[in-house]
Amino acid sequence: MSGSTLGELFRVTNFGESHGPAIGCVIDGCPPGMALSEADIQPELDRRRPGTSRHVTQRNEADAVEILSGVYQGHTTGTPICLLIRNTDQRSKDYGNITETFRPGHADYTYWHRYGIRDPRGGGRSSARLTAPTVAAGAVARKWLHQVYGTTFRGCLTAIGEREIARDDWTQVDRNPFFAATAQGIDELEAYMDALRKSGDSVGARLYVEAQGVPVGLGEPLFDRLDADIAHAMMGLNAVKGVEIGAGFDCVRQRGSEHGDELTPEGFLSNHAGGILGGISSGQDITVNVAIKPTSSIRLPRRSIDLNGQPAVVETHGRHDPCVGIRATPIAEALLALVLMDHALRRRAQCGDVSVLTPDIARATR
Amino acid sequence: MSGSTLGELFRVTNFGESHGPAIGCVIDGCPPGMALSEADIQPELDRRRPGTSRHVTQRNEADAVEILSGVYQGHTTGTPICLLIRNTDQRSKDYGNITETFRPGHADYTYWHRYGIRDPRGGGRSSARLTAPTVAAGAVARKWLHQVYGTTFRGCLTAIGEREIARDDWTQVDRNPFFAATAQGIDELEAYMDALRKSGDSVGARLYVEAQGVPVGLGEPLFDRLDADIAHAMMGLNAVKGVEIGAGFDCVRQRGSEHGDELTPEGFLSNHAGGILGGISSGQDITVNVAIKPTSSIRLPRRSIDLNGQPAVVETHGRHDPCVGIRATPIAEALLALVLMDHALRRRAQCGDVSVLTPDIARATR
Amino acid sequence: MSGSTLGELFRVTNFGESHGPAIGCVIDGCPPGMALSEADIQPELDRRRPGTSRHVTQRNEADAVEILSGVYQGHTTGTPICLLIRNTDQRSKDYGNITETFRPGHADYTYWHRYGIRDPRGGGRSSARLTAPTVAAGAVARKWLHQVYGTTFRGCLTAIGEREIARDDWTQVDRNPFFAATAQGIDELEAYMDALRKSGDSVGARLYVEAQGVPVGLGEPLFDRLDADIAHAMMGLNAVKGVEIGAGFDCVRQRGSEHGDELTPEGFLSNHAGGILGGISSGQDITVNVAIKPTSSIRLPRRSIDLNGQPAVVETHGRHDPCVGIRATPIAEALLALVLMDHALRRRAQCGDVSVLTPDIARATR
Amino acid sequence: MSGSTLGELFRVTNFGESHGPAIGCVIDGCPPGMALSEADIQPELDRRRPGTSRHVTQRNEADAVEILSGVYQGHTTGTPICLLIRNTDQRSKDYGNITETFRPGHADYTYWHRYGIRDPRGGGRSSARLTAPTVAAGAVARKWLHQVYGTTFRGCLTAIGEREIARDDWTQVDRNPFFAATAQGIDELEAYMDALRKSGDSVGARLYVEAQGVPVGLGEPLFDRLDADIAHAMMGLNAVKGVEIGAGFDCVRQRGSEHGDELTPEGFLSNHAGGILGGISSGQDITVNVAIKPTSSIRLPRRSIDLNGQPAVVETHGRHDPCVGIRATPIAEALLALVLMDHALRRRAQCGDVSVLTPDIARATR
Repeated sequence: MSGSTLGELFRVTNFGESHGPAIGCVIDGCPPGMALSEADIQPELDRRRPGTSRHVTQRNEADAVEILSGVYQGHTTGTPICLLIRNTDQRSKDYGNITETFRPGHADYTYWHRYGIRDPRGGGRSSARLTAPTVAAGAVARKWLHQVYGTTFRGCLTAIGEREIARDDWTQVDRNPFFAATAQGIDELEAYMDALRKSGDSVGARLYVEAQGVPVGLGEPLFDRLDADIAHAMMGLNAVKGVEIGAGFDCVRQRGSEHGDELTPEGFLSNHAGGILGGISSGQDITVNVAIKPTSSIRLPRRSIDLNGQPAVVETHGRHDPCVGIRATPIAEALLALVLMDHALRRRAQCGDVSVLTPDIARATR
Repeated sequence: MSGSTLGELFRVTNFGESHGPAIGCVIDGCPPGMALSEADIQPELDRRRPGTSRHVTQRNEADAVEILSGVYQGHTTGTPICLLIRNTDQRSKDYGNITETFRPGHADYTYWHRYGIRDPRGGGRSSARLTAPTVAAGAVARKWLHQVYGTTFRGCLTAIGEREIARDDWTQVDRNPFFAATAQGIDELEAYMDALRKSGDSVGARLYVEAQGVPVGLGEPLFDRLDADIAHAMMGLNAVKGVEIGAGFDCVRQRGSEHGDELTPEGFLSNHAGGILGGISSGQDITVNVAIKPTSSIRLPRRSIDLNGQPAVVETHGRHDPCVGIRATPIAEALLALVLMDHALRRRAQCGDVSVLTPDIARATR
Repeated sequence: MSGSTLGELFRVTNFGESHGPAIGCVIDGCPPGMALSEADIQPELDRRRPGTSRHVTQRNEADAVEILSGVYQGHTTGTPICLLIRNTDQRSKDYGNITETFRPGHADYTYWHRYGIRDPRGGGRSSARLTAPTVAAGAVARKWLHQVYGTTFRGCLTAIGEREIARDDWTQVDRNPFFAATAQGIDELEAYMDALRKSGDSVGARLYVEAQGVPVGLGEPLFDRLDADIAHAMMGLNAVKGVEIGAGFDCVRQRGSEHGDELTPEGFLSNHAGGILGGISSGQDITVNVAIKPTSSIRLPRRSIDLNGQPAVVETHGRHDPCVGIRATPIAEALLALVLMDHALRRRAQCGDVSVLTPDIARATR
Repeated sequence: MSGSTLGELFRVTNFGESHGPAIGCVIDGCPPGMALSEADIQPELDRRRPGTSRHVTQRNEADAVEILSGVYQGHTTGTPICLLIRNTDQRSKDYGNITETFRPGHADYTYWHRYGIRDPRGGGRSSARLTAPTVAAGAVARKWLHQVYGTTFRGCLTAIGEREIARDDWTQVDRNPFFAATAQGIDELEAYMDALRKSGDSVGARLYVEAQGVPVGLGEPLFDRLDADIAHAMMGLNAVKGVEIGAGFDCVRQRGSEHGDELTPEGFLSNHAGGILGGISSGQDITVNVAIKPTSSIRLPRRSIDLNGQPAVVETHGRHDPCVGIRATPIAEALLALVLMDHALRRRAQCGDVSVLTPDIARATR
């Protein structure tokens, strides 16, 4: 395996660079017979798209997806689906000054040592732009999971920097520029971000993502546990430094009598497990928290070195998200869908299509 | 892939159940020519072994490892290395009462729905006992990484329940029953654990693990990033609910000007990244925090259901760790070594053995 | 992937050397709930066992298989099944003289250059003895395929050296030492082999293997076609130099009007395709021919070189099969079963359990 | 794994259908730093291109390749290389009559049963057109192998139907429409093919392909032997029914004293092994024979059934190769290169870059 493929049975192979001619992915293993068109995918891409508010990068990309293969007469054929997104707003001159130095906190330095060559235009392969094909592939997985199991996904930002964001009204998520599941404090967040942007600095974020209507029994207990694969997918997202399932780090202080979710014939009484026990889904909601570091490309001057190892001062201008976490919510949803999709097929391979997949009890409590 | 294999090029395939005749693993892809005997592996197994103090399970297992293949005249041949550990102290009667009910927080429930059958003896396949072969395989990886790159690994417990444990003296780690890197507060911890055990409850823990002397340039940036694979390995460890690399969730509140580690010709000035940038090792220490939930098998009565979905009360007797986190430190070290080993071979495949792997600058600062 | 694993979803990882303490394999991905014990596996191992006639190696191995994991109360649990076979009759002194030279036609030379070290005892890892775990794993696959689809497997030798062997009576296969599907010419074959053995030389063979009752629709058309994976499995068997599916090399001279198997509502009218069209099973019998080279360890003196590149004369004494093809039939059957098993699970993953798997028409003609 | 990817470390994922908007592939794992442009790839595509003589399909495709990613300033970056080829001459109306029936010998029938849906336009996914991206990927592998090891590849047709073609002058291969390595009998072949085409029938072919300058020590002996992976690749090519390495089926009649290639300090004295011993390259030329069945789409009427299982008569008009083998030579060369490339990286991963890779002795004799 060479690193650019996610999943074993629903395989997504990603390609492209930020300022190359195109980015995209190939999905291999999609079940045949599902209705699919660009219209199923584009809305998810639009949620992740740059330039939608002043708080994110002003790069102007339509992110229009084209299905190149795997669909015939509007239905998947079971053969590889290639999704292509042309890059249209590359302004590589913006980045010319970073080809000779390494931005602190950036992949510049490690790509250079990994490959001995790197495409510096817009971060090249390390750009968060490469998450667009992941979102596109996730839309395909979401559609299938919804049709077969009724599974749904949603996510929201729960903190930007030191500002905690309430999670009290999911209907608000798409009504503000922050994927905030609340109507409270949005103005203050706007002001906070405006001040940050002016300062030339960046800030971290935390997001929450969940899946509802998950079939029970998904996961390979050792080593490809469902939670392990979720952690792999989330930590594989640019800038992520921490992942929690269910209670996460709060479990350290919990007693077993508190953490272990009791069961009744009507369902589970709590969900500290985050929907996963022993690496296998329990049918409860799968709940995930993700920590995202501040953007490493900032306008403030920082100490670094150049390609010759000599001291240098680096300031990054150009178009950057002051908080990369803001646009990460649809990506995290997509990643969660891709992992569940893969494990749904893996379970089906070994155990077949059995009704035990969605017993009432498992879904009774969320 | 069917779930029981870790790694792509240094592949560890795990087998066994807690109370079956034996557990073990097959390592495929180990470089040839390295001196290897059971004596290289046994000390790591002994660190993880049950029964070493009153604070862990009293199951009495020698955990003696036998090398069945892949070694000739004391050296690895490059062919699969099978490591076998016989189970010797199975007391399955201890567990008879749990075959008809599901322990809250335990994999009982999900294995049942995943497979329609489960081996309930000692937790069967879901037992933490299955981490022993992982520790054994990790010992092989550690030896190779140390010989080739000088890489070393160490870990310690940093919290048990609400008790934070200092990390101020690494020499103490093997001198107390808690893998505590401190001489402070050990008596209080002993008392705390004694009280907990008497109460019949269990508690969570947090551990820290790090690698030093890591070559720069390990990792496949998308999707099999080094941090993603570390997260996968750690979250794949029994009872883990959270993983952090470097600053982890603290990065949410950090500014880019703080988080991004500056470089000078003498090295990095900080290590918020935890040794990984853009999914690739920077040559700094790799630092990981792991949250471990409380043991789900406790003596206190809990509500649950039986196989027929009827209400039941579950109390678990028998031999259990009141804090599974205590013995997890050597396992986390082993997992970190296995991931680095795999990526060292992956990098070598694509980029060859080049001296750029360990530039002085990358190792100057930790 | 590191080479010692066969299959993607029904994964068999092989370990061991000819004269090490044990050989075996781990099967990961076996469906749960199937009755399984050593008694299901041992008969197939006995068919392949050495020492059953004077025409094969006289090494005396019981080849007793032990199931170490993955079975509980006589049924598969869906977790890895480790099968262990202890080596008992190692006489490594027989091979002492070959450690310094390379046998013409043998893997000695290439192992040395691949790994820089090799286990020369009995051919080490390159020994045909390593096919025993494959036969054991194949027995598990055969049982499952037979229970679910009614699929059966059989094979026979169709040539030894220049002697063609008729295929006119399948009931004879286990009644002679040659896996000959005929009652004709067995005495002559015995005399032929006796003369060969006395001459100190060895000879090649050709075998035929088929699967009946194959579900239609197995295979990934590009690149993991069913025929491609069969070719991979067969060519991966020691000493195999050629593989044919259906008409094989005879298709070169055929016209499309002859080769293309016509269909009627009652079924196919011929089977030049060998049961596979476009890389996917058609439901007809899958038919395979395999060419096996002469044993490279012979008593006759041959020119070679030693480890220092100096000229040497090599004569190999010890216990060798004068025709390795003779014992290959049960191995080829096992390999065919393993490939079909893997693809049955792969198809189920992508397309589910649908009745279209075994339409009457597909099976009407063989 | 989902079937459309070839290779483990040099991974080629193929996508597209004959009459979809585009076909192509993603190469993941290519070593960084190699000069690469479309000009390195296009000549190989031109060799395979349709419409180059009256003996092949008259479909008019430029097969112009576009590199979408993985190359920066004319050099590979080590990140995925997406190669795109737009389809331009789709005339799907030609195929309208085959959507309701199954062509004898064609994948129509099995795709239908595998997926329950198929793209019938030009054979859809089962079209030999999908070999174009393989040829393109092969060109990348060929360039790298040539630069690093001096490895070269060549192939030729050795039979069309009952007409054997001499292999006596490699300079002729690109000077006739048949990839014939001879100047003899070309006129007769032209006449033979003209007559065949007029008859409305098709015919099989046999081709020979070889690699020279192969490093010694490539191959994973069990199960991913080098010969096994070559067989997998070749049998995975459309219409292939047989594969031989070295002596192939002739080895059945050989004695060990003849087949086993003797060694002297100056090199091997023969090459019955076809350059592979024990699944590992010996440094000799790798030699492969491939049998290709007659095209299944022919003008002659044939019995078949329709989608409802009712009898039907099928005649296929449109643009088809009367002998698909003719254009297969560059494809087989590409596949051989891809397999060697993958194993070169696999060996490097496990054993590093060592000079033993190309000892003089191994290359002394071909």
